[in-house]
Amino acid sequence: MNFKITGTGSYIPNVVTRNADFEQHEFFNLDGSSFPQDNPTTIRKFKAITGIEERRYIEPEMNTSDIATLASKKAIEDAGIDPETLDYIIVAHNYGDVKSNTVQSDTVPSLATRVKAKLKISNPKCVGYDILFGCPGWIEGMVQANAFIKAGIAKRCLVIGAEALSRVVDSHDRDSMIFSDGAGAAILEASEETGGILSHESATFSLQESEYIYFGKSNNSKSSEDIRFIKMNGRKIYEFALVNVPKAMKTCLENSGKSIEDLKTVFIHQANEKMDEAIINRFYKLHNMQAPEHVMPMTIHELGNSSVATVPTLLDLVRKGKIDHQKLEKGDVVMFASVGAGMNINAITYEV
Amino acid sequence: MNFKITGTGSYIPNVVTRNADFEQHEFFNLDGSSFPQDNPTTIRKFKAITGIEERRYIEPEMNTSDIATLASKKAIEDAGIDPETLDYIIVAHNYGDVKSNTVQSDTVPSLATRVKAKLKISNPKCVGYDILFGCPGWIEGMVQANAFIKAGIAKRCLVIGAEALSRVVDSHDRDSMIFSDGAGAAILEASEETGGILSHESATFSLQESEYIYFGKSNNSKSSEDIRFIKMNGRKIYEFALVNVPKAMKTCLENSGKSIEDLKTVFIHQANEKMDEAIINRFYKLHNMQAPEHVMPMTIHELGNSSVATVPTLLDLVRKGKIDHQKLEKGDVVMFASVGAGMNINAITYEV
Repeated sequence: MNFKITGTGSYIPNVVTRNADFEQHEFFNLDGSSFPQDNPTTIRKFKAITGIEERRYIEPEMNTSDIATLASKKAIEDAGIDPETLDYIIVAHNYGDVKSNTVQSDTVPSLATRVKAKLKISNPKCVGYDILFGCPGWIEGMVQANAFIKAGIAKRCLVIGAEALSRVVDSHDRDSMIFSDGAGAAILEASEETGGILSHESATFSLQESEYIYFGKSNNSKSSEDIRFIKMNGRKIYEFALVNVPKAMKTCLENSGKSIEDLKTVFIHQANEKMDEAIINRFYKLHNMQAPEHVMPMTIHELGNSSVATVPTLLDLVRKGKIDHQKLEKGDVVMFASVGAGMNINAITYEV
Repeated sequence: MNFKITGTGSYIPNVVTRNADFEQHEFFNLDGSSFPQDNPTTIRKFKAITGIEERRYIEPEMNTSDIATLASKKAIEDAGIDPETLDYIIVAHNYGDVKSNTVQSDTVPSLATRVKAKLKISNPKCVGYDILFGCPGWIEGMVQANAFIKAGIAKRCLVIGAEALSRVVDSHDRDSMIFSDGAGAAILEASEETGGILSHESATFSLQESEYIYFGKSNNSKSSEDIRFIKMNGRKIYEFALVNVPKAMKTCLENSGKSIEDLKTVFIHQANEKMDEAIINRFYKLHNMQAPEHVMPMTIHELGNSSVATVPTLLDLVRKGKIDHQKLEKGDVVMFASVGAGMNINAITYEV
């Protein structure tokens, strides 16, 4: 028995925020000190490193579970399945539903329950739960769905990655420009076809790394200590990712029985363009090769970093032929890879 | 291969809050109206239905991930294992770490990462993630751990249920008296011994039921609309649970190949004493029997409803001989069962 993706869907929010829209922000360093340079300079440097020119936010009346549902509907339609036949709905996120202009995460009931209710699925044997695993949550949800199918407790699973980071960013933190909103979803099924998920690799690094991405107070020292936002130590993450992600990807590929020459596309978490390029170059260097052109499709320029949503969104856009020089065909070997809060790292080798 | 619990641990918080401590509270109905009776009457009726006389809260300086760690240490010690050999740390909760006197849930990094860091586990192949599944989260974590072992991606898992509901209760809501704090943990391992997890049953009811337990504003109409608390529709939950939980338990038992006569103990979520009694009576009635004496150990009188923590805590107390008339011996057949936000229901048949 194999485990194949039979449908994908994504939701790209409507509100476009360009880098220039941050020019009036009052940015501070983590210690509350002001930046020595003006905002246009800060933004220019930011773009040079991250590649981000614009990002998408959801409208005020929407929530993470709403966009999770919209992406799911497309994945269900793409797979051509009856949603009542789903055994699991797994939603990867990190902050739950945060209503616009409020500061609380709403996670009860789970987002999976909300998605199931919005999809109007009545079958109680369709079990919905949420997984919190940092940015690699969607890939980890796929690993879990795969295990459920292998263990004989499921045949068909809907795995969603959805996040609205616009609801938890500190507008006084330059890093707020990285984060965006989005949702992606995939249907994973037991299949008689060849290919599917060939191997996976998951890891949690918490001894030194647990606070590289955390929930912390505003960089504006006048703000309340009690209201917290997504925060990260970009330099530490960069160094950590560069050492550990290529290694995990290499192990994952080895365990799949496929060679580096077989690999056509790497769907990597859209964290930061320079970091992603450094990871892919190091990964190929571990195989004494140069990274081939077009091996790593990128959406970060227009979509930013939408956490758990970047990989399934990227996969959906490539499957639907919406990214230049990217196409998937039967038999292609690809990899999904991610790194994020935890610090968690994971990868899946997949044959289309 | 079988799947056995080789160690358990629990943490019972130190702050004891008695029913009398609520006498000065100003309770309102959901619509903001006042109660017709005085507080001693309200509290007397509350105790008659729920059985709760006192409940436990964590100290202000503690957090959910701290008590999750304390319970885990005991489970690891009880199993006599090296924590570095754990393949998974699965933490079931619903609200993350909520610092005392603040209103935000902190879920980044995941509580599993925090527990792993506090346990000083360095092995990156020990993967930590959180599951959100309402009160049945710990049982569902056990179902998932079991699937991972069956699928060959794990051999040894730590599954924790931890919650500090004292951080999300509305002091103007009578239901706040139900909720408490606690943590329980178990080690599940692949084993050559007979017995272990024989069957499970999981279900999510979301079409009508998704908002039976939800995050809502205070019953005090003078409070902010934007600050929300755990809320529930007790009557609807009671009716729902009475119909659906005994049915799920019956299916679970049938799938285990064991008979009702084999069943020695039911570890049921400590939600409400009257409701739990009605469930167990209905479950036995479905088998044309009366519920045997001592089949359902209860801790709700002193510990209240600590959500995901009640079942593993109860299991730990019984295993350690701390509950009168309760004892587990090799070969005993028991059941874990729960119901909660989602609405989710699950059950496991387990042979000691």
